[in-house]
Amino acid sequence: MPRLKLINCLSGFKSANLMGTVSNDGIENVAIFSSVVHLGSNPPLLGCILRPHSVPRHTYENIRETEWYTINHVNTNIYEQAHQTSGNYRKEISEFDQAGLEAWYSKACAAPYVKESQIKIGIQPVEEHFIEANETMLLVGSIEEVWFPEHCREEDGFLNIEKAETVTISGLDAYHSTDRLSKLEYVRVDESMQREQ
Amino acid sequence: MPRLKLINCLSGFKSANLMGTVSNDGIENVAIFSSVVHLGSNPPLLGCILRPHSVPRHTYENIRETEWYTINHVNTNIYEQAHQTSGNYRKEISEFDQAGLEAWYSKACAAPYVKESQIKIGIQPVEEHFIEANETMLLVGSIEEVWFPEHCREEDGFLNIEKAETVTISGLDAYHSTDRLSKLEYVRVDESMQREQ
Repeated sequence: MPRLKLINCLSGFKSANLMGTVSNDGIENVAIFSSVVHLGSNPPLLGCILRPHSVPRHTYENIRETEWYTINHVNTNIYEQAHQTSGNYRKEISEFDQAGLEAWYSKACAAPYVKESQIKIGIQPVEEHFIEANETMLLVGSIEEVWFPEHCREEDGFLNIEKAETVTISGLDAYHSTDRLSKLEYVRVDESMQREQ
Repeated sequence: MPRLKLINCLSGFKSANLMGTVSNDGIENVAIFSSVVHLGSNPPLLGCILRPHSVPRHTYENIRETEWYTINHVNTNIYEQAHQTSGNYRKEISEFDQAGLEAWYSKACAAPYVKESQIKIGIQPVEEHFIEANETMLLVGSIEEVWFPEHCREEDGFLNIEKAETVTISGLDAYHSTDRLSKLEYVRVDESMQREQ
């Protein structure tokens, strides 16, 4: 267990997201994920690591059924509730109820959003990659809609997720708020040192 | 560009790491990555998204040549230098020199570590997955050695990366320090609600 706790810290700070899904027969599921990763902007893609043999299995089954899932930023007001969703509940149990979170639906997206989350993303699955080394899966999803508070948008398009009180995770179970040090400039390289395009 | 900046913020906070590599003819390369993700603890695996058509191409070529790379946490003392490595330099140019960072070698690992980084991980590549949706690649690596300051290790095995001044990234170019809110307990579920193993 100490070794497992150490290894979990090595990647650095992690994103803190709740994934919302629903089964075809209407059973809602919400689960915390610290493995959501930006894959690219054009087309807009997010990746996520699923562990088919552990808790998020219901999540995966639901995504296969409805072809939709949501990613919802965990913020300072709900991180303790969000952490509760990591429990190993039976499929009939709604983690929304267990964690005291509220489901909210948009018109387009079949999966439930987390109402308390300030930044919400509606996603459709596009690719799966099975990682043989530990039998996990990279799920690639296409961003179909985004909900965020207008006051978090900066002039250049940047979304100030710190203003939305989004938290970050380290290891298995530590939650952190953040303080912006700086927004740095795009790095321009002197022509003599530039790589050819 | 505003859209690209927005999309880059949606995954939440990102890990901030420098990847160190070297070519067979000894040209060192170091590049910042915000896509390093924990894949699993047993075996200990890290993932990373490579964009073969952009800057980190040299990184990829070097990994193929030496079968080693390093992941080094970016901390508050070096984040501005680390950001410099995102420039588009020719292969002959060492980003260590350009960014004012120092390479350091262990006995086992062929790739250079970043001396200024407090948490350093030596990795060997084990799997590659080509993501068709945007022609990027998930590189899966096996953690072979880890260097960290002893005072950052907590009693339960947890590595306090905040104490190591590790930073986190949002979007393309914003750097943040962190404040730990809490380390939460493992969630135990009442037997009547538990999923069968």
